[in-house]
Amino acid sequence: MAKVRPADPALSFQRMLRMLIGPRPAASSPRRDVRKLVALCETLLTERGEFSGRRLATDALLAYAMLDAESRELFFDRLVKEFSPATDALGRAADAYRTDPTQANLIRLQNAVEPPRQELFRRLNQGEGGTAVLVEMRKHLLATLGKHPERAGIDADLAHLFRSWFNRGFLFLQRIDWGTSALILERLVEYEAVHQINGWPDLRRRLDADRRCYGFFHPALPNQPLIFIEIALVQGLPAKVQPLLDPQAPVLDPATADCAAFYSITNCHEGLRGVSFGNMLIKQVVEELRRDFPRLKTFATVSPVSGFADWLTKTSPALTIDERRPTLLRKVLDKFRGAGASASAIDEADGPEVAPGIQRELSRLCASYLMYAKRDGKLPLDPVARFHLANGARLERLNWMGDTSAAGLARSLGFTVNYVYRLADVERNHEAYANAHVVAASNELRHLADRSFVV
Amino acid sequence: MAKVRPADPALSFQRMLRMLIGPRPAASSPRRDVRKLVALCETLLTERGEFSGRRLATDALLAYAMLDAESRELFFDRLVKEFSPATDALGRAADAYRTDPTQANLIRLQNAVEPPRQELFRRLNQGEGGTAVLVEMRKHLLATLGKHPERAGIDADLAHLFRSWFNRGFLFLQRIDWGTSALILERLVEYEAVHQINGWPDLRRRLDADRRCYGFFHPALPNQPLIFIEIALVQGLPAKVQPLLDPQAPVLDPATADCAAFYSITNCHEGLRGVSFGNMLIKQVVEELRRDFPRLKTFATVSPVSGFADWLTKTSPALTIDERRPTLLRKVLDKFRGAGASASAIDEADGPEVAPGIQRELSRLCASYLMYAKRDGKLPLDPVARFHLANGARLERLNWMGDTSAAGLARSLGFTVNYVYRLADVERNHEAYANAHVVAASNELRHLADRSFVV
Amino acid sequence: MAKVRPADPALSFQRMLRMLIGPRPAASSPRRDVRKLVALCETLLTERGEFSGRRLATDALLAYAMLDAESRELFFDRLVKEFSPATDALGRAADAYRTDPTQANLIRLQNAVEPPRQELFRRLNQGEGGTAVLVEMRKHLLATLGKHPERAGIDADLAHLFRSWFNRGFLFLQRIDWGTSALILERLVEYEAVHQINGWPDLRRRLDADRRCYGFFHPALPNQPLIFIEIALVQGLPAKVQPLLDPQAPVLDPATADCAAFYSITNCHEGLRGVSFGNMLIKQVVEELRRDFPRLKTFATVSPVSGFADWLTKTSPALTIDERRPTLLRKVLDKFRGAGASASAIDEADGPEVAPGIQRELSRLCASYLMYAKRDGKLPLDPVARFHLANGARLERLNWMGDTSAAGLARSLGFTVNYVYRLADVERNHEAYANAHVVAASNELRHLADRSFVV
Amino acid sequence: MAKVRPADPALSFQRMLRMLIGPRPAASSPRRDVRKLVALCETLLTERGEFSGRRLATDALLAYAMLDAESRELFFDRLVKEFSPATDALGRAADAYRTDPTQANLIRLQNAVEPPRQELFRRLNQGEGGTAVLVEMRKHLLATLGKHPERAGIDADLAHLFRSWFNRGFLFLQRIDWGTSALILERLVEYEAVHQINGWPDLRRRLDADRRCYGFFHPALPNQPLIFIEIALVQGLPAKVQPLLDPQAPVLDPATADCAAFYSITNCHEGLRGVSFGNMLIKQVVEELRRDFPRLKTFATVSPVSGFADWLTKTSPALTIDERRPTLLRKVLDKFRGAGASASAIDEADGPEVAPGIQRELSRLCASYLMYAKRDGKLPLDPVARFHLANGARLERLNWMGDTSAAGLARSLGFTVNYVYRLADVERNHEAYANAHVVAASNELRHLADRSFVV
Repeated sequence: MAKVRPADPALSFQRMLRMLIGPRPAASSPRRDVRKLVALCETLLTERGEFSGRRLATDALLAYAMLDAESRELFFDRLVKEFSPATDALGRAADAYRTDPTQANLIRLQNAVEPPRQELFRRLNQGEGGTAVLVEMRKHLLATLGKHPERAGIDADLAHLFRSWFNRGFLFLQRIDWGTSALILERLVEYEAVHQINGWPDLRRRLDADRRCYGFFHPALPNQPLIFIEIALVQGLPAKVQPLLDPQAPVLDPATADCAAFYSITNCHEGLRGVSFGNMLIKQVVEELRRDFPRLKTFATVSPVSGFADWLTKTSPALTIDERRPTLLRKVLDKFRGAGASASAIDEADGPEVAPGIQRELSRLCASYLMYAKRDGKLPLDPVARFHLANGARLERLNWMGDTSAAGLARSLGFTVNYVYRLADVERNHEAYANAHVVAASNELRHLADRSFVV
Repeated sequence: MAKVRPADPALSFQRMLRMLIGPRPAASSPRRDVRKLVALCETLLTERGEFSGRRLATDALLAYAMLDAESRELFFDRLVKEFSPATDALGRAADAYRTDPTQANLIRLQNAVEPPRQELFRRLNQGEGGTAVLVEMRKHLLATLGKHPERAGIDADLAHLFRSWFNRGFLFLQRIDWGTSALILERLVEYEAVHQINGWPDLRRRLDADRRCYGFFHPALPNQPLIFIEIALVQGLPAKVQPLLDPQAPVLDPATADCAAFYSITNCHEGLRGVSFGNMLIKQVVEELRRDFPRLKTFATVSPVSGFADWLTKTSPALTIDERRPTLLRKVLDKFRGAGASASAIDEADGPEVAPGIQRELSRLCASYLMYAKRDGKLPLDPVARFHLANGARLERLNWMGDTSAAGLARSLGFTVNYVYRLADVERNHEAYANAHVVAASNELRHLADRSFVV
Repeated sequence: MAKVRPADPALSFQRMLRMLIGPRPAASSPRRDVRKLVALCETLLTERGEFSGRRLATDALLAYAMLDAESRELFFDRLVKEFSPATDALGRAADAYRTDPTQANLIRLQNAVEPPRQELFRRLNQGEGGTAVLVEMRKHLLATLGKHPERAGIDADLAHLFRSWFNRGFLFLQRIDWGTSALILERLVEYEAVHQINGWPDLRRRLDADRRCYGFFHPALPNQPLIFIEIALVQGLPAKVQPLLDPQAPVLDPATADCAAFYSITNCHEGLRGVSFGNMLIKQVVEELRRDFPRLKTFATVSPVSGFADWLTKTSPALTIDERRPTLLRKVLDKFRGAGASASAIDEADGPEVAPGIQRELSRLCASYLMYAKRDGKLPLDPVARFHLANGARLERLNWMGDTSAAGLARSLGFTVNYVYRLADVERNHEAYANAHVVAASNELRHLADRSFVV
Repeated sequence: MAKVRPADPALSFQRMLRMLIGPRPAASSPRRDVRKLVALCETLLTERGEFSGRRLATDALLAYAMLDAESRELFFDRLVKEFSPATDALGRAADAYRTDPTQANLIRLQNAVEPPRQELFRRLNQGEGGTAVLVEMRKHLLATLGKHPERAGIDADLAHLFRSWFNRGFLFLQRIDWGTSALILERLVEYEAVHQINGWPDLRRRLDADRRCYGFFHPALPNQPLIFIEIALVQGLPAKVQPLLDPQAPVLDPATADCAAFYSITNCHEGLRGVSFGNMLIKQVVEELRRDFPRLKTFATVSPVSGFADWLTKTSPALTIDERRPTLLRKVLDKFRGAGASASAIDEADGPEVAPGIQRELSRLCASYLMYAKRDGKLPLDPVARFHLANGARLERLNWMGDTSAAGLARSLGFTVNYVYRLADVERNHEAYANAHVVAASNELRHLADRSFVV
């Protein structure tokens, strides 16, 4: 029993569009385009829209997809003006509920408070490619929110729907490998931001026998991972990222690996911001891997310390340096305070006999940054740390020169850090972190931080 | 690329349950069971629930599924008491918005007006079998609404979520045939209510080469059709239902058929009441069939006139009979007015020379019933007519003795009626019906009704 | 990427046939039908046949499928007369090879010795449903071989092809469960011969969570298992068959099972006789189950002793009874020698105090039968024993009243026997059996046999 | 119901090999490697081989795959010496049959004439990746046949098996598009020889909405097309190849195309030489396209005239030039006779006023070559012409400068030719060609040839 008539996979919605529509007619103007789109939206909300919803919705989606940035501004304005709740009716419903807080009045108020936009979005979703276009629409919208706070309501509506639609119960985990369709694989190339994929040979190596890649998918976007994670099956907890990425690296028999190293995790859709999948993905992937490779003992990331250089440059000047160990530390700090953190700052370290000292001081500073640098005095300043600690991982080990890419040197001064996921501890770690902001860390890393002599 | 580890298809959620849990512990009491469930629900709404949502949700779903009817009453009461919006906060948010109707205040009010129940249901949906259990929960709830109007808010929350989750854009049409899994086929046997399926040989005939069956499915319930429709590919518009259902009927080469007869359409889930799929299903199936069988000319139902007998017995006494044709009509009406409409009332018709007359009078009355009998003076009294007319079909032909089953005789006095779907007209018909309650009908049927001499 | 346009699964080849052809034309005669078929076969072997092979082959397959038994006789005769090797050319090729045994002459002889039939069958296989019809054809043919030894060559050709086509490398193992298509499930009902399936509820129980069913399939017959095996996951080595078959039996959590009981194995196609899959199926299924259920410790059959009653009646009179234990044993044997083995013979056992003695004597006789009764003095007389012992299993335990069905009582006097598959031993057992006819057995069974006091 | 445990798609057999085996042990020698392999083959043919066939076969396949070219020579020699039919037994069987040509003696002779190699290959096929390795083995073997005619028997055995295994009835047609797995797509890049694919963007364009690609697959090689064909859906019969291959070409709405242009067809496996699929593929693809795009009117190739330049250089000197039109033709011929046919020969044509004349003369010569140049006086000299004419196509139109690639200019002097497939004519064309070597051609092309003034 096959699903009936699936769409031609050669046609993404965008490309289908271009083919169907051809070049935008010269006569079209933003104002006219938006007028047409709004008219379609209005019809879609009528009785007739209920009946011919699919066709109308597809037309409206096409009309939206054709808008240029300028037109979209106009359209968003009209979504605020014409598809918001009716203030009067809402006021009356609120009064009625205040006076008489019955279930019936509550339901009436709930209905009054829901903007027509929300039903509009639900009906748009019936059209071909609806979900994809709406996710795209929110991406467009988010980029304008800074200048247009009055559009927050549109965002609230889309976010509300997306939280329902992209409920974890509807997602499915899928392994991505070289047997996966090119349609999906090209998304990896497109989206991977942490460690860029340089063409198909690079991709192929990342999907080889000693690598794993998993993604969460939604049934309405079967060719679009929502989030994906890349894993190397290796022997021993890896310190360095570059060997994991080397397309020429020899392929290990995965059955002999004892460590699963998560070296990249990528959220694919800006339009799904705030609808989080990351922690669920990691936990489920750990379970998969444990089942497939019973010899795996360690599940850990090889992560950047992405805010370190920045912190060192901007924040550390305010630090108090412990009296007892001034010289080298001060020298190191001065370097960064002065010139801006950079790879060259490290390279300049004069003479090999000095370098180990610098390395030691920087490692202590970095550990200190991860453990003690806070945002608002509560949560860690480092965004990657916030993500993994919130997921219940613990800071395990700091690796000098773990990432020697230009970006790695610039942001992390070349450091990588391993966050370890131990299933027995993650829930406890998570709760201690969530309730008391406790940062789980290995003794090694704790000691390192405690010897930084900065406060 | 396969989805990871699908559940064992031998295990429906209910059966898995029984296996996991075994007989309910003797020591359990409704009060204790519900207390445990509510505690799980509360945890699910905390920080920890966000982290371990899947496991907690599965536990809560199991706990709910174990409740007996008495315990469910207690649980629904607590959903009203403890998971409704906080009245104070809601009041303040309403006041704030009244005073200052900004987007921010609107969003605050929207948040205040959404009961915690709704987030609870969303989180429950993450657990194994979540969607199925929630649909079941609404079914349970609906059965209690009559006595408990204060639970309407729970229903509104579930209905709101279901309208989002079961959006047409997420459903897929699937053909069901003898190559379909037994898991799905046994649902047809279970749900089909219009013309009961008597075992697998009967089912097999309904899925043979000259029959079609299509259903809408949701990805989260892959083994459960939401609605399904049964079609016979035949030559000529059929009048009678029984030959279409006969397991021994010879199989026609479907390529020679000129008519697709829709003889049954079944909504499977009471818990999805109000989330309608019927009109979309018919339209999409018509498109499928047209593509597969270009020789098909007619798309029509063979439907019961299910309220006719009832109307004749209860309503017709109030009718005014036209002066000119009193005798036979009055005789017929008297029969039904006296004894209650029944098959025997027809059989009693004395003598073959009289029967044709009775048949004629009853046909006129039936046509009149379909065309002119109204509910609240607006929409047709007959529920099947309301459904198909709202979908844009038109009343085509009335068939004497079209359904001679016990139920057919009792409800429809044996009549069937064909509603025809003509793609060129459905949208127009639908709008005329929706806006002006216009009943689309063939001339034949219209004339018949106009000669009924009742007003 | 879907395969292109699969056939309508509602249409088996046979049923499609009936639909396409309708009733056989009155004017047709066996002679004329066969003449037409042979003409198609001849064309199929020409140049044109190479070009339009698919269409011609489909026509020929349809023509064959329409033949009645009488016409098939005529067809087989013509396959012998007209599609055998050309005797002269073959003679010349044989002479040439005798004179000069070069590779070229060998190849020429190989070509000469291959009947045109074989190429005919290969070309027929290109048509729709070709493989299925050819397997059916061999079934028809085998039934006539007794009377027509001259048709052995046709059989040799088909068997040669089938051994190539149904090579283990082309088969795939598939689990069959309640999520499997009805098309396949109805085959189980049709083919299962050991323990008949009584309708769909019975079938459903056999596919429930604590049951497993696996089959070997060939890609050209995707809806037809070639062989399938039924397994119960239970606690402890079962003695009795009936509890395993009871549709009402409670469902066990399969994770708690320690024994996989193979209670039925069925070859589906008489036309594939001699192309064996059984031993490969058992071994692969054992591997599957070990992987899915690591707690399983025992893999064993619950088998009939299907030749026991027959042996007792016919063969045992010739046995010498040991002098020392004459009374009861002689009494038991007399019963069977006289009246024919039957369930009633056992029931008549006079008085409960006697029964245990009879049970003991019969058990000893049965063990003796399994261990020592031979065919041609070499291999066991019991056909089930031959199968499992050849697969490397060992005789483990004899169970009194293990199968109380009518067939079980009649054939096995109610006994069942467990053959155990221990992966560590199967290869050794197999070789000892294959080379020296060694019967692997438990000490218990061996002792029982040695106390039978018959020689 | 999923097939059980498919192999990891990241692992082709070759790559799995490398991983399992690691570098070849230093101590290994060709002689020792082959000895080990032959020992495995011998065991595989024993009783034990029947039992543990899968494992033994896999070991043997691995051992074969590890052999270097030198070792393979030794192995092939031993296949001739030790796995050929026993000459004596074969002689006796031949004698027996000569004396008494019964069915039994025929079967005996058939068995005697089948080399043990054939059963060996059948058993090898049971192992993991067996079919792939055997196809590879024949490729290796074919390369050595020239020097080793005594190995023809091995080839005959493999070819015999492959004709059975790769029977059209077992192949399935699959569309290949951008939704196809990368595993298959990379094969296209690897195998395409007519018009090389330059990386993934080039490939992607060839699979876009106005392109089609179909392949025949065998179930045992699901990730390996046996043959594939590339098609452009265009408006009008195309003359030139380069625009069809341009990755930047705009994408046409395929529904508006009226011509399907087959611009490349590729046999993927040298090891399957002589097992032909090409004509069946074209016919089936034409049917698919007609069904999907009813507006298509023309099905035609854009083919090279690949032997033209060669013929002009080598063969044309012997041609008699008609007296009446000597000058220009002679000039053209002289060019090629002198310098070897090449693109530069054309470029040198002095002045635009001369070019048209040269073009005309060359076109006539090319038409003449296609129509009249023969091999052995019977079949066309041009290999592409032989393929398409044998399939029932006809020569339609010659295109000047239709392929301006280096290869196109060198081989075809830049010409392309369209072969048209008209379903109504193909069978007739095929038979006229097969029986009487009739070359089907358009009047245009025929006239052109007849004006070449060469005989």
